[in-house]
Amino acid sequence: MFLLESGDDIVVVDCGVGFPEEEQPGIDLVLPDITYLKKRRDRIRGLFLTHGHEDHIGAIAYHLPELRVPVYGTKLTLGLVKVKLEESGYLHQADLRELDPDTNATYGAGVFRFEPFRVTHSIPDAVGFAISTPAGLIVHTGDFKLDPTPIDDRRVDFTKLERFAKQGVRLLVSDCVHIETPGVTPSERVVGETYDDIFGQTEGRIVIATFASLIARIQQIIDVAEKHGRRVATLGRSLEKNVAMALELGYLSDPTNRLIDGREGSFLPDNEIVFVVTGAQGEPMAVLSRIANGDHRDVEIGPGDTVIVSATPIPGNETSVHRIINQLFERGAEVIYGQRARVHVSGHGSAGELATMLTTLMPRDVVPFHGEARHTALYRDMALEQGFEHEQIHIAAIGRAIEITADDVKTGDKVDAGYVYVDGITVGAVGDVVVRDRRALAQEGILMVIVVVDRDTGQIVAGPEIATRGFVHAKESADLIERAKEHLRDSIGDGSHYATADWNYLSRQLRDTASTFFHRETRRRPMILPMVMEV
Amino acid sequence: MFLLESGDDIVVVDCGVGFPEEEQPGIDLVLPDITYLKKRRDRIRGLFLTHGHEDHIGAIAYHLPELRVPVYGTKLTLGLVKVKLEESGYLHQADLRELDPDTNATYGAGVFRFEPFRVTHSIPDAVGFAISTPAGLIVHTGDFKLDPTPIDDRRVDFTKLERFAKQGVRLLVSDCVHIETPGVTPSERVVGETYDDIFGQTEGRIVIATFASLIARIQQIIDVAEKHGRRVATLGRSLEKNVAMALELGYLSDPTNRLIDGREGSFLPDNEIVFVVTGAQGEPMAVLSRIANGDHRDVEIGPGDTVIVSATPIPGNETSVHRIINQLFERGAEVIYGQRARVHVSGHGSAGELATMLTTLMPRDVVPFHGEARHTALYRDMALEQGFEHEQIHIAAIGRAIEITADDVKTGDKVDAGYVYVDGITVGAVGDVVVRDRRALAQEGILMVIVVVDRDTGQIVAGPEIATRGFVHAKESADLIERAKEHLRDSIGDGSHYATADWNYLSRQLRDTASTFFHRETRRRPMILPMVMEV
Repeated sequence: MFLLESGDDIVVVDCGVGFPEEEQPGIDLVLPDITYLKKRRDRIRGLFLTHGHEDHIGAIAYHLPELRVPVYGTKLTLGLVKVKLEESGYLHQADLRELDPDTNATYGAGVFRFEPFRVTHSIPDAVGFAISTPAGLIVHTGDFKLDPTPIDDRRVDFTKLERFAKQGVRLLVSDCVHIETPGVTPSERVVGETYDDIFGQTEGRIVIATFASLIARIQQIIDVAEKHGRRVATLGRSLEKNVAMALELGYLSDPTNRLIDGREGSFLPDNEIVFVVTGAQGEPMAVLSRIANGDHRDVEIGPGDTVIVSATPIPGNETSVHRIINQLFERGAEVIYGQRARVHVSGHGSAGELATMLTTLMPRDVVPFHGEARHTALYRDMALEQGFEHEQIHIAAIGRAIEITADDVKTGDKVDAGYVYVDGITVGAVGDVVVRDRRALAQEGILMVIVVVDRDTGQIVAGPEIATRGFVHAKESADLIERAKEHLRDSIGDGSHYATADWNYLSRQLRDTASTFFHRETRRRPMILPMVMEV
Repeated sequence: MFLLESGDDIVVVDCGVGFPEEEQPGIDLVLPDITYLKKRRDRIRGLFLTHGHEDHIGAIAYHLPELRVPVYGTKLTLGLVKVKLEESGYLHQADLRELDPDTNATYGAGVFRFEPFRVTHSIPDAVGFAISTPAGLIVHTGDFKLDPTPIDDRRVDFTKLERFAKQGVRLLVSDCVHIETPGVTPSERVVGETYDDIFGQTEGRIVIATFASLIARIQQIIDVAEKHGRRVATLGRSLEKNVAMALELGYLSDPTNRLIDGREGSFLPDNEIVFVVTGAQGEPMAVLSRIANGDHRDVEIGPGDTVIVSATPIPGNETSVHRIINQLFERGAEVIYGQRARVHVSGHGSAGELATMLTTLMPRDVVPFHGEARHTALYRDMALEQGFEHEQIHIAAIGRAIEITADDVKTGDKVDAGYVYVDGITVGAVGDVVVRDRRALAQEGILMVIVVVDRDTGQIVAGPEIATRGFVHAKESADLIERAKEHLRDSIGDGSHYATADWNYLSRQLRDTASTFFHRETRRRPMILPMVMEV
């Protein structure tokens, strides 16, 4: 999420979700924190979307009802947004406005004026924006690579880029996540060629796992399936919905009716079907994982079949993806994945493409965006090599404003920013404290110490009792637990010397005594939760 | 850990540790389960070690006191074992026997006879074994690559391999973990060349993070440091001990006294020092992580300094390694890691090298070993391409015996095998149940429901009280918790209708009622722990 603010006007670019990391257990999704925007709701003039990937549109269903602003996007992007809003029941209230990047049309929003320009990415209909602002022209690339042969034949609009350059670009906000790779990213086209090879060598069933939003990838599968006389069955709710929408809007073309219903696919001969499924990131409930486990209703995989995992694991997902690949091999299937063949290419430009964008636009200043510290640092090095000066390159931080005028760029105030968690059906109920507790619980487990006291005399009338989970096995460590209770009884006494009514001191004693005891015995520090019950 | 058994004789090859995966939270180490060996202790004739890496010798300190068998290894391998046994206090009781791979010496152990042969790996003094058995000659490669220019100039002993081949190899047990990479793995030598380039361009401090057991890597650092006029300071206990031992045994050579004490390094000018540190896998307590956090006592890193992360993250460690790299960039340091330059090469042979080993030995049968299902499956494909038949290739599984005679290989019985966990100072106290609980706690948190009942009347005299961690924030969700208590009171009543003495039914009622309530309210299922206290 990227904000521009000038006077009384705010515009927002993209509104995506993040995916929880290892150290955010139990979290379903990570949303941007929009506290800052909610406080200034009447000043937001529009939400402009660069493309339809989850990390750019995924939070709209959560945040749009609060922000109630017009949403601008290209046809496919809005199609994907509609699928989401329909599910959340907000579609009829949304004000969706289609952008046309193929003319020189511009779209006003307060003092700002947006001109979309085509870029190539791993989804069709992706754009960047040239934004006229009081400080000058700001170009936001969105996610891009310079694919010379994109599946939809719509290349990066260099005519517009050169026009912007001539006009003078005050600031470039550039994608930078693939800067670690030198040279250029291969075209999406090579994935189709790999598919063609694999289809030509396979007699059995073919299963291809990919992302639900990789519409271009699905077009390639349809094309290769046609060549090799196979039908294409999609499995996975998000995938099915996106395919239906993309067909309707004309972003998928299926002239010979390759696409069939998922369940139908299981009745066709092995060499006449390819299943396209979700779960390429190892998500445990998705179709690929269930196929690997052998508990998918419609697709059984065995010797002679081929599974293509057409994605690179996001860091943190490697272990789950490898587990699934291992399971598929154990079932006797041939498994083709990134380390074996080019079945996935990045949607982001490598260092060479990022440099080309930078030197085409020759902005006065540049902010590498959408990357980690290592990416922004390497982008800075690349820009220095291209002749830019240190003071032209600005490293942004989440929640830290950058103040830009016609003459100057400087770091501004800190604003409310960050993220909120989605967990179950609650948004924001689980915060950092809860997540920290979860991490601690996972590392060492928990141990409850309960005593019942007489509210009048302060005497302990039952307990200490101990219950534990995730620390030691209560049955196998019965002796340890018994000794702990004894030690607690000895240390605490009968309780009669504790003040009544306020049990904080007794609670603390229980916790500290148990903590010391168990650390001495096991060198570990489970979370200890003392409970004093009054009767 | 690999066992050979014939009649009354058992021999063991290697005894290493595994590292806990994401789904084994809180676990420090994973040891092989030696139940099978403990029951047959008087039949074990020896433990033969291929090389000194943790995943091959790391469990010796835990298991040797129970097994009490002679341990065979080359000089450096035994040196590393001694460091471990000294720490655990078992060294004086250990029977360590040095292997000489440079003669044709063989070592008898029951009906078996071991002949070690040199292989190259990312540690010096690595060997494989040719083992004479009643079924014929078994060759176990250990971990290997075919490095033409190893740092210690000791190449793979093809003379011996050809002699074994002539003699006839009944079974090859081969490394296979790097089979996904085609061709050959680069020589360790290229890492030294990269170091040389980096040292030549750096004026500031240099920090190199690597593994404590990569003795050859440390030799390269000493050599390059000498060339560029820097001293080498090691930081990290395991590293310091291993370096001292390797120097003493002559596996590290430091003719110009480059090596200095870690703390001394901090007093030298920036361009005269290189720090070698532990923590290249992102271990949170290791030196690299502390430097990145800015809380290492002796080493501060900033602009002008260069940090080399000379390792590839083990799958599952990517996020922690990336976090450290980001932190170092944020401090202004230049960070060189695998995606940027060749600062690490694998110690394992790629597909071409594995094929060379296979076709040099031309065994009658082959078992790919030490890999996951994807590795053994790809090794099988490679062997098929080399002209082997399906029935010559045997995929082993942990705990599943392979029965081999002069004429036949078949899958045998299942035996006790698997792993035990080290957690704190306890071995085996934390089992799968506890680890499963930890995972559940991390996903959804825990909720305790406590009531106090009168043991005579069964009446509830206090509670239900609720305590929770890792589920919702108790204070922010006070209303939810209050409603839950009310709902529990309404559902359970005053308790007088429950049978006294046996509170199982009441416990179950508490758990089920709370579970249903919270799932309805939050769509989540925290672990629920009911406690009934009697007064």
